Amino acid sequence: MKKGITRRDEDFSRWYTDVIAGARLADYAPVKGCMVIRPNGYALWERMQSCLDRMFKETGHENAYFPLLIPESFLHKEAEHVEGFAPECAVVTHGGGKQLEERLVIRPTSETIIWAMYKKWIMSYRDLPILINQWCNVLRWELRTRLFLRTTEFLWQEGHTAHASAGEAEEETLRILDIYRTFAEDYSAIPVVPGRKSEREKFAGAVHTYTIEALMQDGKALQAGTSHFLGQNFAKAFDVTFQNRQGEQELVWATSWGMSTRMIGALIMTHGDDQGLILPPRLAPTAVVFIPIFKGQTGHAEVLQYVAQLAASLGKEIPHRVDAREEYTPGWKFNEWERAGVPIRVEVGPRDVQRGEAVLVRRDTGEKITVSEEGLKDRVAELLDDIQRSLYERAGRFREEHSHVVDDYEVFKELIADEGGFVRSFWCGAGVCEDQIKQETMATIRCIPLEDGGEEGRCVRCNKKAHGRVYFAKAY
Amino acid sequence: MKKGITRRDEDFSRWYTDVIAGARLADYAPVKGCMVIRPNGYALWERMQSCLDRMFKETGHENAYFPLLIPESFLHKEAEHVEGFAPECAVVTHGGGKQLEERLVIRPTSETIIWAMYKKWIMSYRDLPILINQWCNVLRWELRTRLFLRTTEFLWQEGHTAHASAGEAEEETLRILDIYRTFAEDYSAIPVVPGRKSEREKFAGAVHTYTIEALMQDGKALQAGTSHFLGQNFAKAFDVTFQNRQGEQELVWATSWGMSTRMIGALIMTHGDDQGLILPPRLAPTAVVFIPIFKGQTGHAEVLQYVAQLAASLGKEIPHRVDAREEYTPGWKFNEWERAGVPIRVEVGPRDVQRGEAVLVRRDTGEKITVSEEGLKDRVAELLDDIQRSLYERAGRFREEHSHVVDDYEVFKELIADEGGFVRSFWCGAGVCEDQIKQETMATIRCIPLEDGGEEGRCVRCNKKAHGRVYFAKAY
Repeated sequence: MKKGITRRDEDFSRWYTDVIAGARLADYAPVKGCMVIRPNGYALWERMQSCLDRMFKETGHENAYFPLLIPESFLHKEAEHVEGFAPECAVVTHGGGKQLEERLVIRPTSETIIWAMYKKWIMSYRDLPILINQWCNVLRWELRTRLFLRTTEFLWQEGHTAHASAGEAEEETLRILDIYRTFAEDYSAIPVVPGRKSEREKFAGAVHTYTIEALMQDGKALQAGTSHFLGQNFAKAFDVTFQNRQGEQELVWATSWGMSTRMIGALIMTHGDDQGLILPPRLAPTAVVFIPIFKGQTGHAEVLQYVAQLAASLGKEIPHRVDAREEYTPGWKFNEWERAGVPIRVEVGPRDVQRGEAVLVRRDTGEKITVSEEGLKDRVAELLDDIQRSLYERAGRFREEHSHVVDDYEVFKELIADEGGFVRSFWCGAGVCEDQIKQETMATIRCIPLEDGGEEGRCVRCNKKAHGRVYFAKAY
Repeated sequence: MKKGITRRDEDFSRWYTDVIAGARLADYAPVKGCMVIRPNGYALWERMQSCLDRMFKETGHENAYFPLLIPESFLHKEAEHVEGFAPECAVVTHGGGKQLEERLVIRPTSETIIWAMYKKWIMSYRDLPILINQWCNVLRWELRTRLFLRTTEFLWQEGHTAHASAGEAEEETLRILDIYRTFAEDYSAIPVVPGRKSEREKFAGAVHTYTIEALMQDGKALQAGTSHFLGQNFAKAFDVTFQNRQGEQELVWATSWGMSTRMIGALIMTHGDDQGLILPPRLAPTAVVFIPIFKGQTGHAEVLQYVAQLAASLGKEIPHRVDAREEYTPGWKFNEWERAGVPIRVEVGPRDVQRGEAVLVRRDTGEKITVSEEGLKDRVAELLDDIQRSLYERAGRFREEHSHVVDDYEVFKELIADEGGFVRSFWCGAGVCEDQIKQETMATIRCIPLEDGGEEGRCVRCNKKAHGRVYFAKAY
């Protein structure tokens, strides 16, 4: 595993793969397009899960589990949904040694099976709202795959809620979008643009889709989480009605929303540098690693004892570990933990023991700070906050530098082709223009921002009147 | 949902289904044999997960995630394994609209895909041990299904470890068995017999299998968790060797172990009564439910305020909730929470407010206890401990009353046919005898207990010499 990491400016795509290998986050599996999430990657996913799960529960959501297998006929009940997902499905045709009477698909998303159950559970307004989330695996057959970003199987959470009114469902959709934004910005240190998807880009089966869009270091955008207002589409498809307070039957209103292991890819491409992964402290499974340094055998026991003492002083709130392995040199370990993105490394040698000190090294800047034993915990906590903040600010500056307000289509094309980034332009709202821009530049509308600034102008492609700028970019 | 619950002595199997429906734990899915785990059931599973996960991590295990889909050819690499699992597999033959070149099975268990990866990761003794666990869904095609106990898809954890020596692997196998025993007895309040499986009953591909066996209220046994010593079988099948300290190549030693949502079934059938589910406090997602009681509108606000105060006094360590719904009567709520198995109900009416008291009702005994506001938290904590202990003791007494030492085959047959329970008899060790007993009585060897007492005797079926009694029972 002592391979080097390709430089970002040399080959960003190889850099990405090298960072994942260097941090031991994931590996390709024997089945084409599938991945193995290794312990370091999964520990990161667990941190993400616990953070999102807490926010979901605080807003009244409960977890449940629905089956992996869905009758193929269910997909066909919602016309747009089947069109979007059927081509990506893996199909089970045999079970228990026999050919099945009906083909089953492995869930690409669970709206259909869940609404088939909601039909059984919802009778009256008293049964509403239903606020359910599930953590699970899904499959979408992909031809071109990249670890975390696009794999045939991935892990995610999918929320599916049922409401008595359109307004309540719409409110839920935005509440979740805000949870996603908070998670991206405050925990992952990734600045995002919250907005709405165009008709072309929305979820298959939704009335409209909200999204948060992030910008990666290679100038490509990444959709980091989506929240869909499904209207009554799935209630219609599965005939789910409820008796309202007036005693009348009404169709139920729905939302769905998801965030996936893709976020790990977003984290890597937002914060990583040429030495490897950089983890934002609030999501780092290990925030601090202690590395004892020995000069021969002298002071060996003293150093180890002192390190144990320092580590214990951090308490449980700051996740840390001591790397006391004897088979590896300190330099080798520095390198390994650097690649793994651990925010703070603490180096402790015999001299530090004598002086009652320790040397902290920031992963993000490389800065070395000598602290006294007593001051360690406070200084570490302070430093972790500072790293969290500065990662976010650095990503924010990068995004600013790579966002352009453009009214001229030639400039638009050049920018997208050369440096990438977000291009904010007027768009008339027509799908035809959107398609043409995509064909001509490979850029898509990432989102129509929630805050559009109210500006009036003319479509960058067709020059027709337009309201508010939208975000264009090439995307993952 | 106001259906009654069938009495256990009337029809145990219907009682079981009624309890699950009454507590809203799960529901059958549209796909045959699959289940939906509803929020109440899933919250229980989350408690189980967090408890087991903590014990796994404390013993050095890490979580990871391996793919759902396994090339069918992988199963064939281990002869016994494929024989055991191939007939139960669901097979994916199409993906992305095309027929696949190679058939893929949905994991029935993950030894094969994991050992294919271990081949890539293990080079030297420095890479060992690998102590990995994964939480996931698996599929085994079942003809006769029962919610939680036997469904086509279920959730579980599966641990897969790799070691440099047989001794270390064997030690790991027993360490996990002890974690399972602790989880069953100290958390689930289910007494279990730890032991080894016979050759006939062991895991397909194992050298030997350890198990914990519990006894349900209908006299049938239930296998609650298994831990397998796999020897070098999978290392051979996937050619996984390591360089030992002496520089020689050796095959790697393996274990695997699993516990599943089946434990929820065990919990129901161990503790439930004719009113429904009874949850052991240490696993109850809600340990205490507060129910405000109003007489008309007088004192409404006071009661609610007082209840909120009482609830807050319990703090975070005791999971609780307040059921202040207006659409339902207190009686209706008592019933609902009783069916849901919540260990303690707290009733609070206007008179309790005046007196600064509250009435606690134990779910297991129905006993009512009046306590003062100040004494609430301590009394509740005490009572929860007491409920936990007495559920375990009650189950222990039941098991004792339904365990018999038998040397006569006619008595054996009668006991198994009539009252069920554990029958402890001598067995010569021959698979033929085991098969005959199964054919003649439907009883199987549940386990050869770890502590066999050293007794010598004669096989209950063939009268040949035998060492130590084994546990026979009809089983789920």
